This record gives sequence, C-alpha cells and structure tokens, in this order.
Amino acid sequence: MTKIIDGKKISEEIKKKLKGEVLALSKKGIVPGLAVILVGNNNASQVYVKNKERVSKEIGINSQIVRMSAKTSQKELEKIILQLNANEKIHGILVQMPLPDNIDTKKISSMVNPKKDVDCFHPENIGRMMIGDASFLPCTPAGILELFKKTKIEIEGKDVVIIGRSNIVGKPLAIMLINLGATVTVCNSRTKNLQKLSSQADILISATGCAKIISANMVKQDAVIIDIGISRNAKGVLVGDVDYANVYNKASHITPVPGGVGPMTIAMLMKNVILATKNQI
Amino acid sequence: MTKIIDGKKISEEIKKKLKGEVLALSKKGIVPGLAVILVGNNNASQVYVKNKERVSKEIGINSQIVRMSAKTSQKELEKIILQLNANEKIHGILVQMPLPDNIDTKKISSMVNPKKDVDCFHPENIGRMMIGDASFLPCTPAGILELFKKTKIEIEGKDVVIIGRSNIVGKPLAIMLINLGATVTVCNSRTKNLQKLSSQADILISATGCAKIISANMVKQDAVIIDIGISRNAKGVLVGDVDYANVYNKASHITPVPGGVGPMTIAMLMKNVILATKNQI
Repeated sequence: MTKIIDGKKISEEIKKKLKGEVLALSKKGIVPGLAVILVGNNNASQVYVKNKERVSKEIGINSQIVRMSAKTSQKELEKIILQLNANEKIHGILVQMPLPDNIDTKKISSMVNPKKDVDCFHPENIGRMMIGDASFLPCTPAGILELFKKTKIEIEGKDVVIIGRSNIVGKPLAIMLINLGATVTVCNSRTKNLQKLSSQADILISATGCAKIISANMVKQDAVIIDIGISRNAKGVLVGDVDYANVYNKASHITPVPGGVGPMTIAMLMKNVILATKNQI
Repeated sequence: MTKIIDGKKISEEIKKKLKGEVLALSKKGIVPGLAVILVGNNNASQVYVKNKERVSKEIGINSQIVRMSAKTSQKELEKIILQLNANEKIHGILVQMPLPDNIDTKKISSMVNPKKDVDCFHPENIGRMMIGDASFLPCTPAGILELFKKTKIEIEGKDVVIIGRSNIVGKPLAIMLINLGATVTVCNSRTKNLQKLSSQADILISATGCAKIISANMVKQDAVIIDIGISRNAKGVLVGDVDYANVYNKASHITPVPGGVGPMTIAMLMKNVILATKNQI
C-alpha cells in the first residue's frame, strides 16, 4: 500500500525535540537569536518570513525581522549584515531571497558570517557540504534527507533522479545524496529523455515548479516520490510537480503538496539556528 | 572515424599561449610565483611535483618547492602556509596530496588564502564553483571542459555519465557539467546497473583507477569517451580505466592514457597560477 510521507507530522516531532533543546539552553541563560532580513514587499517573501517568525516563537527562538525598503542600497544592506555579524545575541542570519535587482545577491550571501549562515548560502558552507565536511546543510535538501531517515528509506546504491538543478535545491541535494552513496542523475529542461530517465528511478525527486509535470507513466512501479514543486493552479489552489491522484497508486512512498517537504524546510532552519547557537557559545 | 582527443597536443597549445601571457607580465616586472609544498617521500607525489616544476619553468613561472619531512607536525605545516599566504612573490600555493595521516588535510586546505588556492581545494572556492561564480576551477575537471571546447563537443542537453565521485574529480566535474546544461549521472562502486547506465551516455567519463573496467559493451555507439583513470598493469605499463583497443572502434571521440586528460591537468594548474597573479596585482 502506498505510504504518504507526512512531512507535517514529522516536522512537528522535530520541532518538539528542538523546543526541548531551546529549553535546555535557556536554563544556561542562552536564547538562540535569529535575524531575518526582508528587503522590499514581495508577497511570497512576506508569507515566508511570517512563517519563520511564527515557528521561531513556537520553539522559543528569539527572532527579529529587519524590514528594509525596496529602495535599499547595497551599502545599507551590507552595513546591516556587518552589524548582525557582530551582534552576540544573534546566532543565525537569514537574508530572505529574492533580493531586489540592484543588490548583488552573491556578494550579500558571502558577507554573512559563515558561523551564522543558517541558510547555508555562503560559498564556504556550500563548499564544506560538497566535500562532506558540512557545518550547516541547506534547509530543503536536509529536510528531504530527514524524511528518508524517518521513513527508513535506504539511500546507498539507489538510483535517484532529480529534476531541477537550482543552487538551493537540485545541486546541493544531488551532492548530499552522492555523498550517501546513491547513483544520482540530475535532469533539467534540456534533458532529452526525461520520461525514460525518470522511470528508471528508485527515488524520483521533482523541483521544477511546473504543476503536474510528473505523470504516472514517468514513474517506476513502487518508486519513492518526493515533490518539492509548489505552484498555484487556475483555481488558486497550491499544487506540486506531481500528478498526485494518478502517481499515488504506483508509488511506494509519496510526499503530498502541501504538507510534504514544505514544513520540513522550516524545521531544518530552526535546527540550524540551534546548531549555530551551540557552536557560538 | 574515431577521433583521438590528443590532450598532449592541446595542452601544448595552451602552454604556448600561457607562455605569452607570462612574457607580457614580465614586461611589467611581474613574475608569477607558485609554491608547491611536498610533505614526506611519497614516490608518486615526487614525480607530480617534479612535473609541475618542469612545466612552470617551461612557461616562465617561478616555482618554489617546499620540501618537508614526513614527520612534519600540523603546526609546522600551518606556519609555512601562513608565511606563503603573506609572501607577495608567491601568487599560487599548492599542497601536494596526499598528506601524512597525522595532518588534518581539510584544515590545511582551508588555510590556504583562497586567492592563492590554484588547486581549488578551499571550501570557499569549491562553493563558488558550485553556484557558478568560480574564481578558480579545479584542474582536472577544467582540463576536461577544455578538451570538449577544443574538440567542439557540445555539452548542453547531452547525457553524461561519470563513474567516480571523488572531491577532486567526480563531484566537481558533475557540477560543472550540470551548470553547462548537461543531464549528468554520477555512478559509484555501489551502482546497481552500471552497464545499463553507462551505455546510455552520449559522453562517458571514467575516473575509477580500475584498469580496463570500461569494456566495449558498456559504451553506446558513437559515444565520447573520457578516461581519467591511471593505474599500472602487471607489466608496469600505465593504463586507463578504458579497454582502449576494443572501445576505440565504438567511440566517436576517445582520450588515450597517457596523453589524454593527464597533460591537461597541469596546463590548467599553470592557467590558474597566471589568473591568480593577475588577480593579485
């Protein structure tokens, strides 16, 4: 029978555990501090930032949102980051992406103190992850590994196909799975034989943001299906990359959208904030 | 007709061009300086270091070999690296691997000034490569990309299979080819269906060090074959991963061993030293 991978439930368990860790820290007089920088008025970003604030509060992390105008200059943003780098009460810094066009995003990511880089966007942290010497793991890929662990899905030797090659999900997830001994194929929009490749996968991971791009004939019988895509259909309903109703019957395990990978990302962010705090005290 | 990819000839052309760049720098009074640190008496390492010295001389790069005893302590090695980081006449620093067991290799790699890290082993440089914002590219993967370029082999949309997942070759090469739009599969010793996967590849790259592991039945008709493996057979002759005599007839392009990827690695190192010099003046 197909098993739904319940990211919401798994993330609640993780958050409960993290709450206990924060409580233990508070007994030593330490409160983990997270600064979230939000530049401009992007609607999706506002929602993401609010969610991070809500979950921080739930766990006991002291979160501070730094709201900056859409007209913020590179220099002003850099100044804020340097201040937060120096602020001992802030253990994690997150710059909400995307930044306005006038900002050099790569420079900003590389200015955050690597020890406070809870999003794992600093090149040094990306590099450490690549050679298997990670301080932090990027949140969405780490959340997926956690789903595998909690669902007892073996990785070593498995044929994994990832559709999507972003810096935030596709590429780091590929590297993390390669490090765990999987045979990993990374596909993109120019892939010639997507259906052939995807239907060879023991574990199929889609991160395209194209609704229902993964149909049942692209999936091997009893494959594990991980859906990272999020988009809205014509009716405004949140949907994933996977044609869930039809793929469901073929999969051994499947993540729903919403309630699959999404809640794990934020739980892993909280985990990184607590890890950063412990490393800094 | 099968085309042999002549890495020796291509590397000679590159070195000739680099020699011209060094000459132009020398007219401004600048001589690129490379320091190579060799700890202990590993035979292979001695040969590699000598080759680097020879090619440096050929091009006009001032190379300096720092020989240290096999009993060198972590502290002593760190001290040398800090001195070379501060030395304005040294633009590139290379620590010959492998280091003795008592040395923390990852720490040493991350102590080299990223601006002088011509091997691209520093996590920051690995991370920049990963997000497509590279200062340096790791030498062997960069040499392979150069072979593709010079041989006019297109990458975008091609199915590439890489056998081997090392930090020096397999993983960075995979990322660089993903960044160029290829569909990339990384296999390892635990891969279930190696023959099936390898024979789907438009471009098959082997980096295992196991002699003749790639037989003709593992290769698609007209595939491009890149052989990074180097080992010695029973007679002491250098051989690659590919069963060259039999694969040759099936391939559209193939690299020989020796004379394929090998000479490109050192040419790319020289390129990195000159790039580092230009970035530092």
